[in-house]
Amino acid sequence: MVNKYENTSVSLKVSRVEAEIITIGDEILIGQIVDTNSAFIASLLNMTGIVVKQITSVSDEKNHIKNALDEAQKRANVIFITGGLGPTKDDITKKTLCEYFNTALRFDEAVFSDLIRIFTAYGKEVTPTNRLQAEVPELCTVIRNHNGTAPGMWFDVNGKIFISMPGVPFEMKAMLTNQVIPKIKELFNLPIIVHKTVLTQGIGESYLSDLISGWEDSLAKEDIKLAYLPSPGMVRLRISLMGTNAEKLNVLVNKKIEELKLIISEFIYGYEIFGEENPSLEEIVGNLLRNNNKTLSIAESCTGGYISHLITKIQGCSDYYIGSVIAYSYDIKEKELGISKDVLALHGAVSQPVVEEMARAVRNKFNTDYSIATSGIAGPGGGTIDKQVGTVWIAIATPKNVYSEKFLFGKNREHNIRKTAHTALNMLRKEFE
Amino acid sequence: MVNKYENTSVSLKVSRVEAEIITIGDEILIGQIVDTNSAFIASLLNMTGIVVKQITSVSDEKNHIKNALDEAQKRANVIFITGGLGPTKDDITKKTLCEYFNTALRFDEAVFSDLIRIFTAYGKEVTPTNRLQAEVPELCTVIRNHNGTAPGMWFDVNGKIFISMPGVPFEMKAMLTNQVIPKIKELFNLPIIVHKTVLTQGIGESYLSDLISGWEDSLAKEDIKLAYLPSPGMVRLRISLMGTNAEKLNVLVNKKIEELKLIISEFIYGYEIFGEENPSLEEIVGNLLRNNNKTLSIAESCTGGYISHLITKIQGCSDYYIGSVIAYSYDIKEKELGISKDVLALHGAVSQPVVEEMARAVRNKFNTDYSIATSGIAGPGGGTIDKQVGTVWIAIATPKNVYSEKFLFGKNREHNIRKTAHTALNMLRKEFE
Repeated sequence: MVNKYENTSVSLKVSRVEAEIITIGDEILIGQIVDTNSAFIASLLNMTGIVVKQITSVSDEKNHIKNALDEAQKRANVIFITGGLGPTKDDITKKTLCEYFNTALRFDEAVFSDLIRIFTAYGKEVTPTNRLQAEVPELCTVIRNHNGTAPGMWFDVNGKIFISMPGVPFEMKAMLTNQVIPKIKELFNLPIIVHKTVLTQGIGESYLSDLISGWEDSLAKEDIKLAYLPSPGMVRLRISLMGTNAEKLNVLVNKKIEELKLIISEFIYGYEIFGEENPSLEEIVGNLLRNNNKTLSIAESCTGGYISHLITKIQGCSDYYIGSVIAYSYDIKEKELGISKDVLALHGAVSQPVVEEMARAVRNKFNTDYSIATSGIAGPGGGTIDKQVGTVWIAIATPKNVYSEKFLFGKNREHNIRKTAHTALNMLRKEFE
Repeated sequence: MVNKYENTSVSLKVSRVEAEIITIGDEILIGQIVDTNSAFIASLLNMTGIVVKQITSVSDEKNHIKNALDEAQKRANVIFITGGLGPTKDDITKKTLCEYFNTALRFDEAVFSDLIRIFTAYGKEVTPTNRLQAEVPELCTVIRNHNGTAPGMWFDVNGKIFISMPGVPFEMKAMLTNQVIPKIKELFNLPIIVHKTVLTQGIGESYLSDLISGWEDSLAKEDIKLAYLPSPGMVRLRISLMGTNAEKLNVLVNKKIEELKLIISEFIYGYEIFGEENPSLEEIVGNLLRNNNKTLSIAESCTGGYISHLITKIQGCSDYYIGSVIAYSYDIKEKELGISKDVLALHGAVSQPVVEEMARAVRNKFNTDYSIATSGIAGPGGGTIDKQVGTVWIAIATPKNVYSEKFLFGKNREHNIRKTAHTALNMLRKEFE
């Protein structure tokens, strides 16, 4: 294994830890579930400075699992295994690891006490079958499971580490984050990786890429990596730098972000820092409303309730959110929001006068400080020569004024709904800048 | 390879095709994206009667890819490869396959004409770099890509088939479904698999499992497989049977479904048949409204716009959906839906009188045939001794009457919102039974 960091640190050798992830379970091989565990593990390892060489999904068969272990240790020095634990799986992973490492099972009192605690909490009795779950391979160090019945297992054999974790995502995530990663960090002197993510809204990936190409080129010289993470209406830009001196890394990454701001500040709505709380756009907007003691109402047409849903899926939103009118038909725009028949007939529902009047009306009617209104052609049908599919008007009403903007999104109904919602939320956010 | 079906067919040997899926790309190994391609391929292969032995994700490195190919062909006779195509990936898959199969690149006129067509459609010029994409290994049969620029490649070497497809999901999906699977079906006499999925709503997985355990035991005798596919408020039950006589398989599966109906008919809202159009619950409800020429309005409190969003994400919903009031605050319940202060004070917003009055009011106000109303404590905060978190009232107003039901869901806000929405839609669906 090449160690490219070996010469960059004076006092300490930085270890290059290479990992392989093995997931055990037929449900992945028949396509019943998507393997999100591997993505979570890979992402966390990457953030921790560990290189993932391969991800392998194998069936619940002993020989197949053993073969995967053989192959994995040729490539990696730490092997992460998930799944195949628990009585319904016939504890295939535990049995296979015992055979593979030529060790026997022993009864573990601490694991059994965890088991009793969990069963008692659910008001269930511990049966003799359950008791078997407290048996662990003699050779392994037990990793206690605080969220379920199957313990994790840590094997250290011939300089290779094998870590077996349960397949239930929240059990695995807690065990990996709180117990496994800290232990690996103690054992190895891992490089430090600084990741910062710049959150942008209102600019497409390819246009963004053109706009920042010069800046992007400058990253390569500093060995900084850039990843584009797009979703409808938004692109997250992740900037990563590996090294040994956290302060130097942070200074360099922050300098690059300052340079980026000079180019695309109008599209940036926030930042994510790995390991910290990272609020979504709707949470950012919600916090701004709460902190400024302001209220919000919404009049939705083309978004059909999606903006209200984004706002209300956040707990505590009743502090600032009052309610909405989903005015899907012309009739409701007239009756509930007082848009005149003449204006609707003259300009059509997807127009500046209508969307601005919708925002004004809902703000007055619901007696709020701010309001959002949307009207557009979500598609895929409904386009005309004048107004093609993807045409959307968004209005914001504030205590001072009402303004609106026109957008032309794509042909995909779902994407148009999401893009409109994210754009509208970002327009409101800018009111508090 | 064991062929368990060999003796069941008189005239034709049924082939046991074993597959391996290899995805190429660093973005999976760093956890940047979840590998949904493999799940899609695995699911489609499973439905087609092909057994997937392993799924492997490897980085964009030649030697690593070659090693994965070596290992895969020990286990499988058909190897599916995605990713690593296209100019930004430096065409690593194409180059590696050339080296692996000791073949050279040739220029393909048909692929080049596809390329020109796509570039022209996007108003772009074909550069010399783009022209390289029309080069393909001499040894392979080209699979035309009708949705993108990177062609698929089919290699048939020493009795093993290697199929390379682009990593862009919609390009891969179209190529696999429309070109690759039909070709495999021609080459192999695959077993027939009948899959039918029973859609249930309103019963949890464990309670459902207890209720149908006797029926479930009876499946094993017939070699029928059952999979539970749960999501908030719904459980899909997939019943699968493999064999050689489609008619017999269908008769047996249908018989089992009839038996199941006798036990859980009240929870079944529909069926999915593999390969046919399978509408969602909101589409089923939408179609019922449209076909009966009826209209719908909604008054949402705890669901905060989510039901309206589900209804309006379906194109053409303006045929039956008129609009909604999201009455989040007490004030809006009073002012917009005419709920009296006294009733609110006496019973609280989460109560039968309030939810029924919400349904009645929105139906009258929006002049629709039907309406849905919801009021509940989505959580995680807001519970009281009388009304714990997860308490939800749902009302349906019809041309004849108004009725409501109380539910106690869980502690998770997002799940409570979704469960409420699915339950409400199913209550409305039952109006048309």
